[in-house]
Amino acid sequence: MRSLFTGALLLALTACTTPQIQQDPLADLRDRALTDMTGYQLVSDLTTEVGARMPGTEADARAVKWMEQRFKTMGFDKVWLEPVVFPLWERKHERAAVIGNSSQPLHITALGGSAGGKLSAEVFMVDDFAALQAVDDAAVQGKIVFIRNRMDKHIDGAGYGEAVIARAKGAITAEKKGASALLIRSIGTDSHRFPHTGMMSLSAGTPTIPAAALSNPDADQLERLLVKGAVEVALDIDVGFTGEYRSHNVIAEVTGSSRPDERIVIGGHLDSWDLGTGALDDGAGVAITTAAAAFFLHPEHRPARTLRVIAFANEEQGLLGAKAYARDNEALLKNHVIASESDFGAGRIYAWETKMAREDAAMVARIKHLMAPLGIDYKGNKATGGGPDIIPMAEKGVPVFRLKQDGTDYFDYHHTADDTLDKIVVEDFNQNIAAWVVMLGVLANEWER
Amino acid sequence: MRSLFTGALLLALTACTTPQIQQDPLADLRDRALTDMTGYQLVSDLTTEVGARMPGTEADARAVKWMEQRFKTMGFDKVWLEPVVFPLWERKHERAAVIGNSSQPLHITALGGSAGGKLSAEVFMVDDFAALQAVDDAAVQGKIVFIRNRMDKHIDGAGYGEAVIARAKGAITAEKKGASALLIRSIGTDSHRFPHTGMMSLSAGTPTIPAAALSNPDADQLERLLVKGAVEVALDIDVGFTGEYRSHNVIAEVTGSSRPDERIVIGGHLDSWDLGTGALDDGAGVAITTAAAAFFLHPEHRPARTLRVIAFANEEQGLLGAKAYARDNEALLKNHVIASESDFGAGRIYAWETKMAREDAAMVARIKHLMAPLGIDYKGNKATGGGPDIIPMAEKGVPVFRLKQDGTDYFDYHHTADDTLDKIVVEDFNQNIAAWVVMLGVLANEWER
Repeated sequence: MRSLFTGALLLALTACTTPQIQQDPLADLRDRALTDMTGYQLVSDLTTEVGARMPGTEADARAVKWMEQRFKTMGFDKVWLEPVVFPLWERKHERAAVIGNSSQPLHITALGGSAGGKLSAEVFMVDDFAALQAVDDAAVQGKIVFIRNRMDKHIDGAGYGEAVIARAKGAITAEKKGASALLIRSIGTDSHRFPHTGMMSLSAGTPTIPAAALSNPDADQLERLLVKGAVEVALDIDVGFTGEYRSHNVIAEVTGSSRPDERIVIGGHLDSWDLGTGALDDGAGVAITTAAAAFFLHPEHRPARTLRVIAFANEEQGLLGAKAYARDNEALLKNHVIASESDFGAGRIYAWETKMAREDAAMVARIKHLMAPLGIDYKGNKATGGGPDIIPMAEKGVPVFRLKQDGTDYFDYHHTADDTLDKIVVEDFNQNIAAWVVMLGVLANEWER
Repeated sequence: MRSLFTGALLLALTACTTPQIQQDPLADLRDRALTDMTGYQLVSDLTTEVGARMPGTEADARAVKWMEQRFKTMGFDKVWLEPVVFPLWERKHERAAVIGNSSQPLHITALGGSAGGKLSAEVFMVDDFAALQAVDDAAVQGKIVFIRNRMDKHIDGAGYGEAVIARAKGAITAEKKGASALLIRSIGTDSHRFPHTGMMSLSAGTPTIPAAALSNPDADQLERLLVKGAVEVALDIDVGFTGEYRSHNVIAEVTGSSRPDERIVIGGHLDSWDLGTGALDDGAGVAITTAAAAFFLHPEHRPARTLRVIAFANEEQGLLGAKAYARDNEALLKNHVIASESDFGAGRIYAWETKMAREDAAMVARIKHLMAPLGIDYKGNKATGGGPDIIPMAEKGVPVFRLKQDGTDYFDYHHTADDTLDKIVVEDFNQNIAAWVVMLGVLANEWER
């Protein structure tokens, strides 16, 4: 509360030196967003009432109903569902243990798309994915390959791309070399006993060997044991593809008053992994974008262009809701004037950027002016994307913007049981909503494309 | 490494202004302890090679053998085992879930001594143990009582005593009122999804209802759900007493050169809970005291009095090794000149204190002088105890000392799966060993009782 108060005080002082802000309805809306609790209540309710909502689970269907109902209750002009069909992958149980003289349990979680399997074998450790690619097939024959490298921590999650290849391609690579299973050190930056799940890439084929991640402390333990000698691990993993499932993208609009066909498309993904309650990934993104758009439902703030909020289905297993959306709405995309997703937790936004055909200097100046009190800098018209679920429409030419969040701690919790509501800092979360309000307000009303 | 270097530099500078320290073998030994890795290697090996070592498990026996062997390898003058027999409590599985409209798993762990049970019932929340005592029996009839209060964080763990009564007496109290089960918010100060186990008090009878702890985020979740309406929880807990087990205290001595019958008794407890690998609780304490005593095995540092190191069996389930020791060694206790245990993690020591018949001013001055460079203050001859396993001998008149550790974060990890080696900060751990070296050196050689 004290930092909220300090923030408000700073804004008030800023306002004193630039009194015209007080005459600016969008600046007022931005400032209201800093203390309004609508967004936080949304993420609290979603993660509490629904909890974890893995694609294809009973909770997936509950989440869709919850979101549809909530959009309606909030008074969005239009609310509807669009179907998303995908292969159903289920997690039943997963256990691992060192066996032999140092027998002890290991904390693992199967990677998304993994096959099941029950086996025990000697562990063969490699430094990283490149080392696995380079190793002789004979060396890993029948063994459990263990990829040991650890993800680095960065504000923008830069270590993720480098590390995640072990998860994406480790199993198929190990299988082709004759290994019996894959273990990876979790793609995560914490030192807690939570394994991080996440999808494998199935583009080069679906592996038939089990693949799982160890928590960082368990990976450390396995490394120490391997220094002392050979280690045998028993795996008992019951997971796999079991059919097909039909979920839905949940979509809501604030209809534009003068340019209703021109749409600004924002959102987050409604699904989460099954281990945590998906507060950071991505209850926060759904709530931030929904709450920001909802400010424009008020008669005094109706936007010229239409604001479309999408709670995407099944982002986690391959942007499946986003791909369905871009395919099924192809005709509309030319009038999707810009799009962006919030899907990197609830840390403070420190920068904004765009990727559009040409920069509008007046629009940029206006947003810069409104973002400054939030501590957010402009990084230029060089965004590399608008968020994961925006990729399929960006590939079809939709311009994007990106609000860059401080993700220093994001990969401490990402895809673990520990992704729960208490990890959201309300002040930072609300700063996000305020920044989204600024973007929406200017892009909907004060931007000539 | 930088802070180790800075520490060494500061000590060197201190030495320059007080050159007599360079002539003091005990000060030299203290300073060597700051960089010696014998102790850290001990706790690393114990937690890696043995791992978790819950009383009565196969790993309990492995730990005893490991400790006996390690004492011998290190060259202690005498090494032996003393039997400790206790009721065997086993944990087979434990699951909990909210059922109904918000169905979702809850992370729990059964409390030590709990009965098993499979049931579902409505949850009845109380603010704390006192509120449970005060509630009408009719209100909790057949229900799962949930005690919601959260432990506070303090440097000396002061919040523990206040909070732990919910774990100690909650189940027997709830059972007497007709409840079907007990859930407590974990007695822990973290916000991670780890439930904290720990023993119930069985002094007022062994409860026949299941009793378990929720992780703090799960307790938060249950509180939020209860605000929205009635909550039904399903429990499936398979634990219980299944027989009797014979473990051992593992004891080693550095024989005193001139007063061998006068013993300074130190140690930690060898057992741990089953969830983590017991690095902080109490691998650290065993390793700190063993490594400190081992410095005095060197021919140049042989002590006048005997140093006895005890790796106690089964502290966790009621000081059972310590009680056996005090009972079976009663005749020796009059020559146990002072005793102390390290059992509060691996945080830096900030104070030392004693509880003995009379203070020896010269001894106090000497220790103060040697402790000052370590940042450790004297708190007087008013210690309330020498550590949990020292209680039974202190009750029979053995004087005690206590080295007070910074336990601010101790209850973040205590009795959870997350109590693993990576939580030990080497510099702080070694500062502990240095302080124990000071105590042992002065008490064994420079103290007239």
